[in-house]
Amino acid sequence: MSLKIARRSTIPPFFVMEVMRAAAEHERAGGRVLHLEVGQPSTSAPAGVLAAAREALGRDRIGYTEALGILPLRQAITQHYRHHHGLDVPLHRIMVTTGSSAGFLLAFLTAFEPGDRVAMASPGYPAYRHILTALGVTPVMLPTGLEHRFQPTPAVLDAYAAARPDQPLAGLIVASPSNPAGTMLSRADLEALADYCAARGMRLISDEIYHRIEYHQEAVTALAVSEDAVVINSFSKYYSMTGWRLGWMVLPDDMCRPVECLSQNFYISPPTLSQLAGTAAFACTGELDRHVARYAANRALLLETLPKAGFERMAPADGAFYLYADVSAMTDDSEAFCRAMLAATGVAATPGIDFDPERGRQFVRFSFCGSTDDMAEAAQRLIAWRNG
Amino acid sequence: MSLKIARRSTIPPFFVMEVMRAAAEHERAGGRVLHLEVGQPSTSAPAGVLAAAREALGRDRIGYTEALGILPLRQAITQHYRHHHGLDVPLHRIMVTTGSSAGFLLAFLTAFEPGDRVAMASPGYPAYRHILTALGVTPVMLPTGLEHRFQPTPAVLDAYAAARPDQPLAGLIVASPSNPAGTMLSRADLEALADYCAARGMRLISDEIYHRIEYHQEAVTALAVSEDAVVINSFSKYYSMTGWRLGWMVLPDDMCRPVECLSQNFYISPPTLSQLAGTAAFACTGELDRHVARYAANRALLLETLPKAGFERMAPADGAFYLYADVSAMTDDSEAFCRAMLAATGVAATPGIDFDPERGRQFVRFSFCGSTDDMAEAAQRLIAWRNG
Repeated sequence: MSLKIARRSTIPPFFVMEVMRAAAEHERAGGRVLHLEVGQPSTSAPAGVLAAAREALGRDRIGYTEALGILPLRQAITQHYRHHHGLDVPLHRIMVTTGSSAGFLLAFLTAFEPGDRVAMASPGYPAYRHILTALGVTPVMLPTGLEHRFQPTPAVLDAYAAARPDQPLAGLIVASPSNPAGTMLSRADLEALADYCAARGMRLISDEIYHRIEYHQEAVTALAVSEDAVVINSFSKYYSMTGWRLGWMVLPDDMCRPVECLSQNFYISPPTLSQLAGTAAFACTGELDRHVARYAANRALLLETLPKAGFERMAPADGAFYLYADVSAMTDDSEAFCRAMLAATGVAATPGIDFDPERGRQFVRFSFCGSTDDMAEAAQRLIAWRNG
Repeated sequence: MSLKIARRSTIPPFFVMEVMRAAAEHERAGGRVLHLEVGQPSTSAPAGVLAAAREALGRDRIGYTEALGILPLRQAITQHYRHHHGLDVPLHRIMVTTGSSAGFLLAFLTAFEPGDRVAMASPGYPAYRHILTALGVTPVMLPTGLEHRFQPTPAVLDAYAAARPDQPLAGLIVASPSNPAGTMLSRADLEALADYCAARGMRLISDEIYHRIEYHQEAVTALAVSEDAVVINSFSKYYSMTGWRLGWMVLPDDMCRPVECLSQNFYISPPTLSQLAGTAAFACTGELDRHVARYAANRALLLETLPKAGFERMAPADGAFYLYADVSAMTDDSEAFCRAMLAATGVAATPGIDFDPERGRQFVRFSFCGSTDDMAEAAQRLIAWRNG
């Protein structure tokens, strides 16, 4: 008798993986690839983190920890909110997680029942909708464009509610700075969304993993405007620790105990060496801010040069390290476009369909977390290609 | 408006956490605690793993990896099956995971739909039933006792099927050696269960995380008797790497691609430094087998001495590092019993209710992965207590 594969587990792969495979082939064939497709810093963890890891390897047994994470790391996170945001967040609301990925799973399981509907901006990080779907929750994609700065608004939510009065929302996911657009929500924007959710019994989940990679103004945490929001953060981006799989959540009081019990069962504890090393990350801002300065230079360079290659319509990218470019003047098949661009120029980028299955055919995401030299070279190649 | 907590997320905490809390208080008050409650080796990772971690810290960026895990580690796992089990397992069926915890989540999501029923022995590892419940799958607890060596059998499954003909099973989880009993399934036992499942379209999931901690004979992998089984393994127990959060799965062909796509979304990739270091673990069997020799000495010591303290009925413990003792002659409230035992003797153990919510009130699990001196001291204290 043949065995079944559960319907809920049939999730599409990330298209960026196909791009990365094609890029690796291009390299094997002798071509030099400029990697503007990757969503992770090109740098390792900061020196202080590496030193702490070395020290822990010689001293600690690297056993399980409490599911909530080790106390010194949780204390460092509360200090971070005090020093960086001027907020007093009680220790019991801080939970260390196995990357932000674990934060999303734990938040979604705890806040939403099967059959619930949860809204988010489209384009957005694809794992939101895929994790929700696997858990039996229906993602509601709110189409947003350049005119919305790719962010949800109460007006967009009202339009949904008017069109689907029988399909109320149980929650809203926001990301500021966003992936793929890099746009941010102002304090007033975030407050309006938090108020909208509070008035309707909707759980607000705020993805803040790109915080501290900011170009004009500091990102606002949802903790500043709501007691009920779930905040999800990560050591992967600003702290340059992707492979360490470390993140954290700030939970509303009512979710602390359920999330802790779920976490014991789903994860036991976050990686211990990563926790011991990551505790040092908050003292490494000198080194980390130099990465942000490089991202800022890369961003300025691309904003100046990409339009010369025909990429003229882009989100403002207040933060993160992405430019989400409207390529509708050049193609209506971003996947084929990215493949052709890679073959012709060696520049790898991500087709928008990963972030927006519908309108993503007309968008491409450029990531600028690599070296400034690579960005300059990529821009020159694209200009030569489009004007050749 | 107050916000809801999803019903599916209301999972009970592990009672062993309460024991650990009480043990910590006992220590703070000046008492010396003998830790027979913990489910993890008292040793660190082997020297070869620590050296590989140090080397990787100096060389590798510690970025994301493929969701399947790094190639050298996957190759080392196929070598392990070739050398240790004499089995050729193709590379594409091997997937590295963030501990066995991730293996369970991925296997359950892919193999079972909401509403399905999945059977397992009771007593058993509590996370099986809690993860299933959170995913909308109904765990079916098969009551097993000393007379079944705490393992499911076709007869036990037939008895269930006869009693609930309208509630067919979609899967069966087995663990050999088991937690909490340490009993093993022979090749014939495992084959009978695999055949039972194959004939009924049930997915067999085999938890093999205590493999290589064996006292009489080698544990048999489900790969030797089934092409359709999902095998879940871990670096936490024999390889003494709990806090590194590293494990692996061997997947049947039809599950490989769905699990890979799920894993990209739920985990991105397993912890990178753990993968780089863990690749060295298979070459560390000299050091690791010395741990097993210590467990064997501890086991022999407790099997000889615990009966003198009134713990006379225990599972045979063919493997793992646990003794599951029937304490029904002494108590019908194992939680209160463990509390009293800790207060009177400083010996911490786990009440059976973590493993069997019903009959666990009459069982206690002793873990013997600590030092032999600690085991001897614990036994003497228990003898003095019960005969004092």
